[in-house]
Amino acid sequence: MLEALKQEVLEANLMLPKYGLVVFTWGNVSGIDREKGLIVIKPSGVEYDQMKASDMVVVDLNGKVVEGDLNPSSDTPTHIVLYKEFSDIKGIVHTHSPWATSFAQAGVSIPAAGTTHGDYFYGNIPVTSRMTKEEIATDYEKQTGDVIVRTFRKENINPNDVPAVLVNDHAPFTWGTDPKNAVHNSVVLEEVAKMTYHSLQLNPHNIEMSQDLLDKHFKRKHGANAYYGQKTK
Amino acid sequence: MLEALKQEVLEANLMLPKYGLVVFTWGNVSGIDREKGLIVIKPSGVEYDQMKASDMVVVDLNGKVVEGDLNPSSDTPTHIVLYKEFSDIKGIVHTHSPWATSFAQAGVSIPAAGTTHGDYFYGNIPVTSRMTKEEIATDYEKQTGDVIVRTFRKENINPNDVPAVLVNDHAPFTWGTDPKNAVHNSVVLEEVAKMTYHSLQLNPHNIEMSQDLLDKHFKRKHGANAYYGQKTK
Amino acid sequence: MLEALKQEVLEANLMLPKYGLVVFTWGNVSGIDREKGLIVIKPSGVEYDQMKASDMVVVDLNGKVVEGDLNPSSDTPTHIVLYKEFSDIKGIVHTHSPWATSFAQAGVSIPAAGTTHGDYFYGNIPVTSRMTKEEIATDYEKQTGDVIVRTFRKENINPNDVPAVLVNDHAPFTWGTDPKNAVHNSVVLEEVAKMTYHSLQLNPHNIEMSQDLLDKHFKRKHGANAYYGQKTK
Amino acid sequence: MLEALKQEVLEANLMLPKYGLVVFTWGNVSGIDREKGLIVIKPSGVEYDQMKASDMVVVDLNGKVVEGDLNPSSDTPTHIVLYKEFSDIKGIVHTHSPWATSFAQAGVSIPAAGTTHGDYFYGNIPVTSRMTKEEIATDYEKQTGDVIVRTFRKENINPNDVPAVLVNDHAPFTWGTDPKNAVHNSVVLEEVAKMTYHSLQLNPHNIEMSQDLLDKHFKRKHGANAYYGQKTK
Repeated sequence: MLEALKQEVLEANLMLPKYGLVVFTWGNVSGIDREKGLIVIKPSGVEYDQMKASDMVVVDLNGKVVEGDLNPSSDTPTHIVLYKEFSDIKGIVHTHSPWATSFAQAGVSIPAAGTTHGDYFYGNIPVTSRMTKEEIATDYEKQTGDVIVRTFRKENINPNDVPAVLVNDHAPFTWGTDPKNAVHNSVVLEEVAKMTYHSLQLNPHNIEMSQDLLDKHFKRKHGANAYYGQKTK
Repeated sequence: MLEALKQEVLEANLMLPKYGLVVFTWGNVSGIDREKGLIVIKPSGVEYDQMKASDMVVVDLNGKVVEGDLNPSSDTPTHIVLYKEFSDIKGIVHTHSPWATSFAQAGVSIPAAGTTHGDYFYGNIPVTSRMTKEEIATDYEKQTGDVIVRTFRKENINPNDVPAVLVNDHAPFTWGTDPKNAVHNSVVLEEVAKMTYHSLQLNPHNIEMSQDLLDKHFKRKHGANAYYGQKTK
Repeated sequence: MLEALKQEVLEANLMLPKYGLVVFTWGNVSGIDREKGLIVIKPSGVEYDQMKASDMVVVDLNGKVVEGDLNPSSDTPTHIVLYKEFSDIKGIVHTHSPWATSFAQAGVSIPAAGTTHGDYFYGNIPVTSRMTKEEIATDYEKQTGDVIVRTFRKENINPNDVPAVLVNDHAPFTWGTDPKNAVHNSVVLEEVAKMTYHSLQLNPHNIEMSQDLLDKHFKRKHGANAYYGQKTK
Repeated sequence: MLEALKQEVLEANLMLPKYGLVVFTWGNVSGIDREKGLIVIKPSGVEYDQMKASDMVVVDLNGKVVEGDLNPSSDTPTHIVLYKEFSDIKGIVHTHSPWATSFAQAGVSIPAAGTTHGDYFYGNIPVTSRMTKEEIATDYEKQTGDVIVRTFRKENINPNDVPAVLVNDHAPFTWGTDPKNAVHNSVVLEEVAKMTYHSLQLNPHNIEMSQDLLDKHFKRKHGANAYYGQKTK
C-alpha cells in the first residue's frame, strides 16, 4: 500500500540527519496521497539508521492508523491539521533544528533580511502566539496545528508563499510540494535563521529588505515569470 | 569482575568524542552496580582511542580501588557523592562540553525555554554556588559533589526530573538510568544550552516556557501517562 | 572550445561545496579568456555533484550564449559588468556564504580588524548601497554589477587591492587573478567575516588595525617587495 | 641533520589542519634542539598536504638557514626571540585560529573564567599592546617577538605557566615543552577562547574564577603535587 510514497517519505526522513537538522529522533517527515486522502508518516521515537520503508505508518485524515505495526509520530495530529487547511501542500517536516528553534524559543519571527530568504519565503517567517493552558490541556498536538493555521490567517499569509512557521516555545514546521521539497525548505530555513541571527546582532535596526527586492527574488524563482534554473529554457 | 558493566561504561565513554562532547581526555563516564555497591569508571587522563574495557577501574563507595591497574578518574569522589545521594541514578557523565560550560563559567542557569528542554529536563538546569576557599582546600572533588547535592536540596529539585547540573566556574555533570542514558542527557544538555544561548541573545526577557507546556512535554515522555515512542503500544 | 578554461571553472565551482561556502546550488564561479573576450560560467540551478566541464556555458561580453546547452547562471549579467569594469580580474565568485552574507544582510562593511584581513584585503570590505526600486525593476542583475562598481569608485577602492564586496541585502562577490584565486578569496572573506563578527561583539569600538600594520601585511604578500612564501627565493 | 626533530615538527604541523586550527597555509610550528642551538621550522607558504619532513628548514638562533631548500616561515624571527627569551620552551606554534584571533583582533585578553582554562593556563591569557609605527617599520617579525616578551615581563607572567599570548590586531602564539605539546596548547587555547567568548556574552561581569580554584586546578595537573592522570601512580 502506497509503497512509492513510503519510500519517498523514508528518504526524506533520512535527509534530516544528513543535513544536520536533527539530534537523535527529534524530527519527522510525512507525505500525503491527496486522491486517497492518506498520509504516510515516520513512526514515533525510532532511530533513523534503523528505519525501513515498511516501518512508515499510514494514517487517514481522522488520525486512524490504516497500516503499520508501529505508533505514528506523536506529532501526527499537527500534520493532519496542516494537510486539511493548507490544501496544496503534499509534504510536511517537523524538526528542532537549532537556529530556527532558537528563534521559536525566543518568540521572535525571522525577518526577510536578504535575498536568500526572499528566494524561498515571500515575507517574514511568523512565530505563533504562545499556546494557552486550554490549548495545551486537550488535544495538544491538534491544537498546535490550529495555532499555526490561525497565525497564517491572522497575518494574511499564503502558506504556499511562506512554507515555514515557528511554533512559539517549541520549534519549526515546514512544508512543500512533496516530502523532499519540504525538507529542502527546512534546510533553507535553518540557513536563513543562522544568517539573520548574526545580522540582527550586527544591526538590530532596519534589517528588512525592501518589498521591491523581495518581489524580485521570490518571483525570479516562483510563478509564471520565473527565470532561475533550467526550467524556462 | 563486572565485565558487562565495564563494556557498557567503555562504550558510553566512547560516545563522548563521537557526539563532540570532549576534546582530548576531558570527560568521563561511570556506571554503578547498585546491588554490589561498586562503581566502574574511566581511568584518569587516558586517550579515548586507546581505551579497552579492561582499563576501566572498579571502585567501592568509599573510593577504594577494588580492581584495575590504572588510577581512576580524578573526579571519582564527585561521582561517589552523587551515587550516594541520588539513589535512583545508575550512570554519571562529566564533560567540559562547550555550550554547557559557557553557562557554567558565566554562573548562569539554563532556563527551560522550549519543548526540547521540557522533553528531558523538568525545569531550569541549575548552576551551583561558587565553591569557597574551604571547599576547594580539602577534598575538593568530594566537595564538588556536596555543592551539587546542596543545590538540588535548596532549590527543591528532584534529580530524576532534572538529570543535569552546572558546577559554577567549572562545567556540567549529567546522570541517568544507566551510563548511556547519562550520555544521552549530556548530548541533550549541550543542544539545549546552544539553542537557549541564542534565544537569550535574541530576547533576554520572558524566555521561560509556561508551566503548563513544561508539564505537557515532560509528562508526554516520562511517567505513567507517557505516550511518546513505541513503549505504550 | 575553451576546454581548459571550462575544466578550470568546473574545478573552481566544485571548491565551493568543499570549503562549505554553499548550500544546494547557491553559488557560481566564472572565468574569462581576455583575448577572446569570452566568459565561461556555471549553468543556472544545476547540482554540483552532477556538473561536468561540458555543462559550463560560454557567453560573450554582451551576454549572448556562444556555446552550451544549458542556461547560464542568472547572475551572468553581474559577472559581465565586473569583467568589463575591473579590467585585471580573470575569475569571479558569487556565494551566499553565511558569515559574509550576515554582514551583507545587516548592511555593515567588514572593517580591517587584523592581519588575516590585511594579508588579502587592503582596507575595509565595502557594502554597497541598497538597490533602488528602479535598479531592481529593470536589468536587475546588470544593475547589481553597476552598484558594485559605483561603490568602488565612490570609495576610491582599487578592486585589485580589495577583491571582495558585500551587496546590500544580498551576499558577497569576490574576484581574483583566475577562477581558483577568486574562490580562495571567498574562503578568506568568510573566515575574516566570522572572526571580525566575534571581535565586534567583544569590542565594538576602535576595532580597525593601524594603516601601518595594514601596509606591512598587505605588502608582505603583494607587489614588488613581497617576501612571503617561496616566490622570492 | 636533526632528522627526528624534523619528523616531529612535520607531524606537529600536520596536527594544525587536523584540529581545525588553520585555513590554507596560515600557521606554522617549530621545534628547537637546545644543545645544538638549532631550530627546525615549517617552510613559508607551503601546503600542508604536500609537506615532507625533508621540507622542514633548519635555522640557527641568528636566523641563518643552516639546511633546507625552501624559505623558512616568514614568522621565523618571532620564534627566535621567544626561544631566546623563554629558555624552557622547546616548541612554538603560530596560527590564526578563529576564536583566539577574534580576541586578538578585539585587543581583549582572555580571562581565566573556568577550570578548563585553569587546567592549562595559570591566569589570564594576555594581549600585547598594539605595535607602533616604528616597531612595524623595521624588523617587524622580530619586533613581534619583542612585544610578546615585554608583555610577559610587564605583567609579571611566567611563560611556563601561561604558554600562550594574543598579539594585538594579529593572532595567537602558543608554546610548550615540545612541538606537539605546543600544538596541544593551541587546541586548548581555541576551546577556551570559544567558551569564554560565550560566557562573556551571557555575563560580562565578574567572570573570573577565584585564585583558590585556579591554584587548585593548575596545581592538580602541574608541579610536584600533581595528581591528575597516570603519572603519579
